[in-house]
Amino acid sequence: MTVLVIGSIALDTLETPFGRAEELLGGAGSYFSLAASVLTNVQMVGVIGADLPEEHLETLRSRGIDLGGVQRVPNGKTFRWAGRYEYDMNVAQTIDTQLNVFGDFRPNLPENYRDTEYVYLANITPRLQLEVIEQVRKPKFVGLDSMNFWIGNPETKRDLTQVIKRVNAVFMNDAEIRQYTGKYNLFEAARDVLSLGPQVVLMKKGEHGAVAVSREGIFVAAAYPLETVKDPTGAGDSFAGGLMGHLAQTGDTSWAGLKRAMIFGSVIASFAVETFGTDGLLRMTPEAIAARYETLRQCTMFESLSQPTEART
Amino acid sequence: MTVLVIGSIALDTLETPFGRAEELLGGAGSYFSLAASVLTNVQMVGVIGADLPEEHLETLRSRGIDLGGVQRVPNGKTFRWAGRYEYDMNVAQTIDTQLNVFGDFRPNLPENYRDTEYVYLANITPRLQLEVIEQVRKPKFVGLDSMNFWIGNPETKRDLTQVIKRVNAVFMNDAEIRQYTGKYNLFEAARDVLSLGPQVVLMKKGEHGAVAVSREGIFVAAAYPLETVKDPTGAGDSFAGGLMGHLAQTGDTSWAGLKRAMIFGSVIASFAVETFGTDGLLRMTPEAIAARYETLRQCTMFESLSQPTEART
Repeated sequence: MTVLVIGSIALDTLETPFGRAEELLGGAGSYFSLAASVLTNVQMVGVIGADLPEEHLETLRSRGIDLGGVQRVPNGKTFRWAGRYEYDMNVAQTIDTQLNVFGDFRPNLPENYRDTEYVYLANITPRLQLEVIEQVRKPKFVGLDSMNFWIGNPETKRDLTQVIKRVNAVFMNDAEIRQYTGKYNLFEAARDVLSLGPQVVLMKKGEHGAVAVSREGIFVAAAYPLETVKDPTGAGDSFAGGLMGHLAQTGDTSWAGLKRAMIFGSVIASFAVETFGTDGLLRMTPEAIAARYETLRQCTMFESLSQPTEART
Repeated sequence: MTVLVIGSIALDTLETPFGRAEELLGGAGSYFSLAASVLTNVQMVGVIGADLPEEHLETLRSRGIDLGGVQRVPNGKTFRWAGRYEYDMNVAQTIDTQLNVFGDFRPNLPENYRDTEYVYLANITPRLQLEVIEQVRKPKFVGLDSMNFWIGNPETKRDLTQVIKRVNAVFMNDAEIRQYTGKYNLFEAARDVLSLGPQVVLMKKGEHGAVAVSREGIFVAAAYPLETVKDPTGAGDSFAGGLMGHLAQTGDTSWAGLKRAMIFGSVIASFAVETFGTDGLLRMTPEAIAARYETLRQCTMFESLSQPTEART
């Protein structure tokens, strides 16, 4: 199966305590696509300027990612983001954001994208997200990301609510879901979002993992325990890419399937953050992913109280 | 089996967004003992002043807790702590601490305490913790808690290192283990502590659960997902009480036993924080604990990739 993503393709400038790098391939759409592409086919929707180096497109193509929905604006400048991380890697400080070609972007899906069933709306204006959903004919599972910027403005928040009503999964971090619902308790907040229609709310907690809340229950997915975190950029989109990639790969969107998909998300995000930029996503293999999946299982499994004592030791 | 604890018995004054209460029964020793007492016998070592209401001692005795190691100083004043929590319940702001009778306390263990095999050294001066270990003849499993105050002072940090070398389990939160080791990455920091001798490092992460690091691996214990958190006071000591209580109850200090014990810790801490003061610990039953244990298992379990597909749906 195939997953379609709309999201930014960017040139990132990063500063961390471990180093600095300029004009790396970045953006939510890029991280998502590279993460998902190891599991399934990916179709990208986005926009780039004349200045995006061809090698970055080659990187995406080399993973089999379909760039048919990516428009290049001949005289435009690519979206740019500059951010800094302190030792506490959980929070990025945005130094600069330049929307550039994304400012006037109107997505127009190629015909062969319109029957794709798995769709991820990466963080972008809710209006663009709506325009994409409206062009997809029979979506089976739509995931949505957003950010404080759209939640804080009453007009874009209204649009965001329209999008939430049409998706299956809402990805938000602690702060975003609290801001959106006005509820401090995360489970109460998640239920408010579920009441709008989605099947599951996926709360991202960075180094603490992620929690899913659905009508079928709660699932706590641990983050993969890493010795080294070099660059958390794209962690959330890599998590989403692993998750959506697994759903599209298996076609199993049941509660059990979602749990497995979240673990794929955790594992793939771990590859993303342990090196700079997208390097980790480019180097990971299906075998390495499967190995970390099983390790994470070992790190979280414990025995039922009803298991016989002899099986316990 | 029996677990022995040295720790504070206090009168707590608490302010949270949900209310205020004065001179409640508090202190690490009290929370630990009430948490453990639902699973096993508890012996308390500590000191109180003339002003500790008899009803508080009755509360402890009503759970079968042995107060033979608690000294009452006839003209002394009981240890007092006043704290405040904002909406972000993870961090307590200490308004006031009065050591009072704990200032001059020298623990002297009753003869029948000296053969106890399970020992918990709640947060108190490392010197007092050492004095307790030295009086216990054949400790099987010793747990240790501490705090930034003792880590920050070079002299008490030296004492703390002596204690760490003699215990099986070190309970620390993120900030404490980073401060103690000077390492930012928690797994690297945990290995530094393990190199001093302990069998396991238990990193408490509040609402995000706890992580154990041992020579046998890593175990991530989720926090029990709660709709309501009213008062996080004593969460760490209740976690330790559940954990040590389960170890003492089963005598199984293997890696599998420790994992189960951590889940008991998570579950029992959840009862502690969902009501004010020690109320939740006093109301919980073995049946309710077992039910939450299994719920937490459901909330964290996921399938192996090698499981047959038909078992997955």
